[in-house]
Amino acid sequence: MGVNILIIGLGLIGGSLGLALKESPLINKIIGYDQDRKTLDKALEIGAIDETLSLEGGVADAHIIFLCTPLRFYPQIIEDIKPHLKAGTIISDVGSTKQEVNRIFTGLPSEIWAIGGHPMAGAETKGIFGADRYLFENAVYVLTPPLGLPPEVLQLLSDLLASTGARITVMDAALHDKIVATISHLPHLAAVALVGLTKDDNDSLMLAAGGFRDTTRIASSDPGLWEDILFSNRDPVLKELEELIKNLNKIKMALQINNHGIIQNELRLAKDIRDKIPRMRKGLIPEFCDIVCIVPDKPGIIGQLGKILGNEGINIVDIEILRVREGDGGTLRLGVPSSEDACRAVKALQSNGIKAWER
Amino acid sequence: MGVNILIIGLGLIGGSLGLALKESPLINKIIGYDQDRKTLDKALEIGAIDETLSLEGGVADAHIIFLCTPLRFYPQIIEDIKPHLKAGTIISDVGSTKQEVNRIFTGLPSEIWAIGGHPMAGAETKGIFGADRYLFENAVYVLTPPLGLPPEVLQLLSDLLASTGARITVMDAALHDKIVATISHLPHLAAVALVGLTKDDNDSLMLAAGGFRDTTRIASSDPGLWEDILFSNRDPVLKELEELIKNLNKIKMALQINNHGIIQNELRLAKDIRDKIPRMRKGLIPEFCDIVCIVPDKPGIIGQLGKILGNEGINIVDIEILRVREGDGGTLRLGVPSSEDACRAVKALQSNGIKAWER
Repeated sequence: MGVNILIIGLGLIGGSLGLALKESPLINKIIGYDQDRKTLDKALEIGAIDETLSLEGGVADAHIIFLCTPLRFYPQIIEDIKPHLKAGTIISDVGSTKQEVNRIFTGLPSEIWAIGGHPMAGAETKGIFGADRYLFENAVYVLTPPLGLPPEVLQLLSDLLASTGARITVMDAALHDKIVATISHLPHLAAVALVGLTKDDNDSLMLAAGGFRDTTRIASSDPGLWEDILFSNRDPVLKELEELIKNLNKIKMALQINNHGIIQNELRLAKDIRDKIPRMRKGLIPEFCDIVCIVPDKPGIIGQLGKILGNEGINIVDIEILRVREGDGGTLRLGVPSSEDACRAVKALQSNGIKAWER
Repeated sequence: MGVNILIIGLGLIGGSLGLALKESPLINKIIGYDQDRKTLDKALEIGAIDETLSLEGGVADAHIIFLCTPLRFYPQIIEDIKPHLKAGTIISDVGSTKQEVNRIFTGLPSEIWAIGGHPMAGAETKGIFGADRYLFENAVYVLTPPLGLPPEVLQLLSDLLASTGARITVMDAALHDKIVATISHLPHLAAVALVGLTKDDNDSLMLAAGGFRDTTRIASSDPGLWEDILFSNRDPVLKELEELIKNLNKIKMALQINNHGIIQNELRLAKDIRDKIPRMRKGLIPEFCDIVCIVPDKPGIIGQLGKILGNEGINIVDIEILRVREGDGGTLRLGVPSSEDACRAVKALQSNGIKAWER
């Protein structure tokens, strides 16, 4: 007999979690709770949850509870559910920062197992409408268990979440927060500060396709959500922000005194580090090989490429238009699962008159 | 009888310019010059140039000369070709910054028409091997004519370059340099500074897929090339860099004093400006509409999407994987030429069981 899950908050993440978990043999049923009736109805309709209950009823019935609301609601929810929690219940969450969550979890009784979680997956849409059974597949899912947690409790939660297709990574909450400050929160702040440079000037924005558009895309995210994230991870963010300003000041000084050596060194170091990222994916996310091809600007070309590779039984696992201009043509990067696939793909494309090579 | 073109430097841009110009009825012939014999042979082989000549011979024979070497070679080239230039010759270039080029061009005799140019197009590959007839198509091509240039000279160069498919935009060199500092050089420096935050730490890099990978992709570019660009546009870059540091310090102060209002305001302003970029493309680059679709993670899905839209006669003009995880599935953004196409595309995808909507 499997476990009962309660998902509190059926937005994109909560809804997707329900859809992904329901196929797990470890599960008995998934109970949903949300303050919005329409959201609950939709969650039932798409099968993200099996039933809805009152908050108390759900808590009393659940073995594992997932908090999937914005972080600012956690304290109130903890207050509300505390009286109804049974000893041995596991509580986890999906928030973007983990030390703050641990602080909130200290309000729980000691016989409750609270384990912070952070699935590093997002999507374009918000809310239950965007819920997607595949949201977590291949995504890194960080768990930050407290000291003294029984290993079998962590194992149960890991096994359950692994059934979503996510890659479970266990780490210390402080390390998690420092890393997300570095790789997520600071890029966001840099994008915000960069967009500010355009001063909403039309000439700048008109030329700002391509690279600028990609670099600053994250600045288009929900301001309210990001305000929450930044303040809930304030100390690590401040520390990294000071470091970023220090790095920029170093570049500024070097430009001011015309020191080519420092600039060259900074550019080269950054390239060396940056070039490691794709290689580092190996093991964590499925390794894949890149091929690059040049295609003419004509209708249906992406379908044609897909068909050529599909006929060879080669899966396109990533696709990107590299060229800094618009148009169907230009240069495309295609990710394929293996170097053997890459070799076959290049041959297949070339024999169809398309310039292609392995990267 | 058309004009004779001399292209000095047959790398990616010079080679692509030759391939794109040769179809123009305005052209008599294209002469190529490069210090590397193999490059010249390859340029002849792929038809990027019609013939090779000595630098003197080419200059004596040409009506229009394009400098397509790195900027640091311009002064020497100007020195070398000056004795052989005929009155009325047009000289242009393809360098990334324009005030510095204008300063170099002041060394030319007064009866030579020197017009700075900057095709805002790049590609993955370097050198003549990457030369591509479609490189300039739909790309913005900025010209920065000097004061007092006869309008018919500018018209001739514009007409010629327009035949490459580029969108010619005339602007002041100082404005151009300020804009490229804002939308290209500063994003580059920010990416370099952000990558430095990871301190080459494996844990960080392992989690650094998705957003960080996209934001910092430009940090992987050629350090030597970027050293040239940054120093040749030093003053505008320094001015914008100071502004960027100021913006970041403002955010830092607000976080330090826990001022949610300032942070919210900065996030919202940046979102408002950033959201304008796609809409601003209208007129400059072909307008297109975005649709978003969610697809399962299975082989051939991109080909299938392309086929569904191809059957409807709808051209995919842009494609992007939105989801912050790897895998063929997930959420895709497809750009199509018109809102009428978008509407039909959504219907066609939906009738094939794919969740899709207009963005």
